[in-house]
Amino acid sequence: MKADPRKLILLGAGNLAWHLGPALRDAGYRILQVFSRTEDHARSLASRLGVEWTTDEGGLNPEAGILLFCVSDRAIPELLCKIELRNVMMIHTAGSIPVDVFRGIAREYGVLYPVMTFSKERSLDVSAVPFCIEGSTPESTAVLEKMARKLSGRVCHMDSRQRKILHMAGIIASNFSNHMYRLSGDMLRSEAMDFDLLRPLIRETALKVMEMDPASAQTGPASRSDDAVVQEHIDLLKDNPELQKIYTFVSDSIRNHSRT
Amino acid sequence: MKADPRKLILLGAGNLAWHLGPALRDAGYRILQVFSRTEDHARSLASRLGVEWTTDEGGLNPEAGILLFCVSDRAIPELLCKIELRNVMMIHTAGSIPVDVFRGIAREYGVLYPVMTFSKERSLDVSAVPFCIEGSTPESTAVLEKMARKLSGRVCHMDSRQRKILHMAGIIASNFSNHMYRLSGDMLRSEAMDFDLLRPLIRETALKVMEMDPASAQTGPASRSDDAVVQEHIDLLKDNPELQKIYTFVSDSIRNHSRT
Repeated sequence: MKADPRKLILLGAGNLAWHLGPALRDAGYRILQVFSRTEDHARSLASRLGVEWTTDEGGLNPEAGILLFCVSDRAIPELLCKIELRNVMMIHTAGSIPVDVFRGIAREYGVLYPVMTFSKERSLDVSAVPFCIEGSTPESTAVLEKMARKLSGRVCHMDSRQRKILHMAGIIASNFSNHMYRLSGDMLRSEAMDFDLLRPLIRETALKVMEMDPASAQTGPASRSDDAVVQEHIDLLKDNPELQKIYTFVSDSIRNHSRT
Repeated sequence: MKADPRKLILLGAGNLAWHLGPALRDAGYRILQVFSRTEDHARSLASRLGVEWTTDEGGLNPEAGILLFCVSDRAIPELLCKIELRNVMMIHTAGSIPVDVFRGIAREYGVLYPVMTFSKERSLDVSAVPFCIEGSTPESTAVLEKMARKLSGRVCHMDSRQRKILHMAGIIASNFSNHMYRLSGDMLRSEAMDFDLLRPLIRETALKVMEMDPASAQTGPASRSDDAVVQEHIDLLKDNPELQKIYTFVSDSIRNHSRT
């Protein structure tokens, strides 16, 4: 008997599963169960979805047609050693893990990679998220494509090598930018100023590149090679060597790119 | 005779003057003239505003009550040496230049610093921009406060030292984030992928911190101390030492901050 690809188990109950779960349910998929090692997380997502949960790899519901791995990259191989279900399609959502992690373990498998940052605290329109898919067979690819298209208007096919590059680029565009927000917020806080002063600037900086190319959107002293201002800032950061290093290298890189 | 503080000359015709000029005019100020060393820029902004222009410091209209410096930080001192008008209030818009740059040159002076990134190519709602003001006398401060409040709903008083810190924080939050967008876009382009794949992620990353604190909003391998992924990316960047350095130091910094 062929497993039903509309019946899913969510493995992982973190930020991604928190958003994908309801989106998949609303797209017509039946979520049978939530698995997480952390009981609180499993229970909390299961209750959001109104389904069962387990913390035990041996307790996965054998009716599932798809196991959707929404765990962190390094948790996948470990989890695979403990899962006994075989007649299922396995799908992971990790940017940096090749599709072949499932080779020899499942017959049908693939990747459904959302190019997005997810936080439980924030609601998100999954239909605007680009999904990159890669299947082990034409049949797997068809299952993935159907799932991705039900979730979102933006679906693209991508191999594991391209996905790894995209993942790294996404970290730079998102996690690194967010860290810049954090560093600048810390700097204001140390002088009793409010992060709110920077919020309109942060918003505009991101919205600018929705239309413009980042190279044309760049402003500021490093892009104008205003070396006196850059050097003054580097000097001001003498008591914060970590930030001083970042300020120096990013300014150098901006200057080098602005010349070209 | 006291100079009329509603009659302005704009010094500089770059990105900032391009946006401030129309906003000031719409707020009821009379712009007499645009000055820029670059004739094309002077002519283009003057035509946008329907006013006169000059490239000659000696040709500034003596009816002006305010000279509004919208030039780059390093151009201010140079320009001050050549301006002969004295019975005017001088205002600059630079984050890193102390208000005292005008001391001994003008009797009334001050700073009107917008915390924003401006580009001619993009329209912008000036009324949402925070303006930080600092006047040389209570009278100057009153002129600045009136001007700032006509431009925007967000006005705060700030001394030159705080403004310098805010300016540096703004560079990190905006110019550095934009550079991250650029680096990630370059990385995609080198693999024939489109920057559009990252745009929803960039947008969401910025919009998240409109509500959340950047520390709580952070995601990704470095914040989870997923060192294997971070190291793999550093290895992948071996042919790009500039980016490899940035990737390493920013990841280290994210990891250090996530632990605390």
